[in-house]
Amino acid sequence: MPNVTVIAKPLLQKNDQIAAANRRLLESKGLVGINVMSAPGSGKTTLLQKTVELLGPSRCAVLVGDLQTTRDADRLAAAGAPVVQINTGRGCHLTAAEVADGLAALDLAGRSFLFIENVGNMVCPAGFALGEHKNAVLMSLPEGDDKVAKYPTLFQAADVVLLSKIDLAEVMDFDEQRMRDDLAQVNSRAPLLRISTRSGAGLQAWLDWVQAIRPA
Amino acid sequence: MPNVTVIAKPLLQKNDQIAAANRRLLESKGLVGINVMSAPGSGKTTLLQKTVELLGPSRCAVLVGDLQTTRDADRLAAAGAPVVQINTGRGCHLTAAEVADGLAALDLAGRSFLFIENVGNMVCPAGFALGEHKNAVLMSLPEGDDKVAKYPTLFQAADVVLLSKIDLAEVMDFDEQRMRDDLAQVNSRAPLLRISTRSGAGLQAWLDWVQAIRPA
Repeated sequence: MPNVTVIAKPLLQKNDQIAAANRRLLESKGLVGINVMSAPGSGKTTLLQKTVELLGPSRCAVLVGDLQTTRDADRLAAAGAPVVQINTGRGCHLTAAEVADGLAALDLAGRSFLFIENVGNMVCPAGFALGEHKNAVLMSLPEGDDKVAKYPTLFQAADVVLLSKIDLAEVMDFDEQRMRDDLAQVNSRAPLLRISTRSGAGLQAWLDWVQAIRPA
Repeated sequence: MPNVTVIAKPLLQKNDQIAAANRRLLESKGLVGINVMSAPGSGKTTLLQKTVELLGPSRCAVLVGDLQTTRDADRLAAAGAPVVQINTGRGCHLTAAEVADGLAALDLAGRSFLFIENVGNMVCPAGFALGEHKNAVLMSLPEGDDKVAKYPTLFQAADVVLLSKIDLAEVMDFDEQRMRDDLAQVNSRAPLLRISTRSGAGLQAWLDWVQAIRPA
């Protein structure tokens, strides 16, 4: 929000300090943190459900940001990992302070992966570090092939881009080359993984990517 | 963002004053304003393209909010109506002041409908009046049947809810009754219109709704 520039800088500095502390806490306990961001309905929760099941619930912990409801947290808890829900009310993204509170409520002992499901929003989350080691950005095929160009800030922050719901490719008009060209313009380092949680396509590549993350 | 509460109230008051002035300007020229809000990729631009074509370009004007690019504006201009693009940079919603600037750049003479395509975001736009007479909220079927419960603030603000991309109903798991039940909880006055810009289903009901809007 351009109107709050005057106070945004100190707020961001404070946020970055707390994010750095969150990261140190994770590293002290041997975890890596992955901040998962996307528009509403891209499939973050379903991806994390499958991820927890496939990696093994005992290796994972999850923080879930939502305006309201515990629906996502309930789904993730059913997958077997400890889950803490952060309700942001009208807040359009998670903050490092909210994540710090969430971490304090999670039993992290012996776990390897902290997944943070951010609020569904392609704009605001990208500006706020949480203490993650890597950012994963999802976009679903039915959202359309123009989203990288239209929300470049989010894709610039990505360490990996997941194109989800690819099982819908046959019934949608989606120009994947256009999306890839746009992504090459704003972010040449993040790999693009095509996934479908319905068919299971691409999930192994995602798991391999997650398991290759090192705290450094 | 809870952290900016201290200054948010005066900012919102100022925004509301400008929004009221925008509405008076529209009424003085015989237009009604419709603020169209949704997540990224729900189909706002395509809906407005069709709407402008079907109502007649000479009766319409369009303001388009986007972080970057003029892609949506280009598509809408091709439909034949005057279009002004507002690039918000990192701004996650339109403000009344941005709409005031946009209105100053539009030739409104003799037109009846101003459509404002807000930034694709289910959180932030709902908090900012722009001068509209009505709010239209889209959500697309592939976003999932839990979105009303998860983003209630947006749906509370709706005067009409459009369920888009219903041509995908056969290939998606979407519990429409669940969505309708959630909507009844947060907003019992907004009609739900099922549309597909691909097949044309439901567009006449939407046009009828638009044409029944009165400035009062």
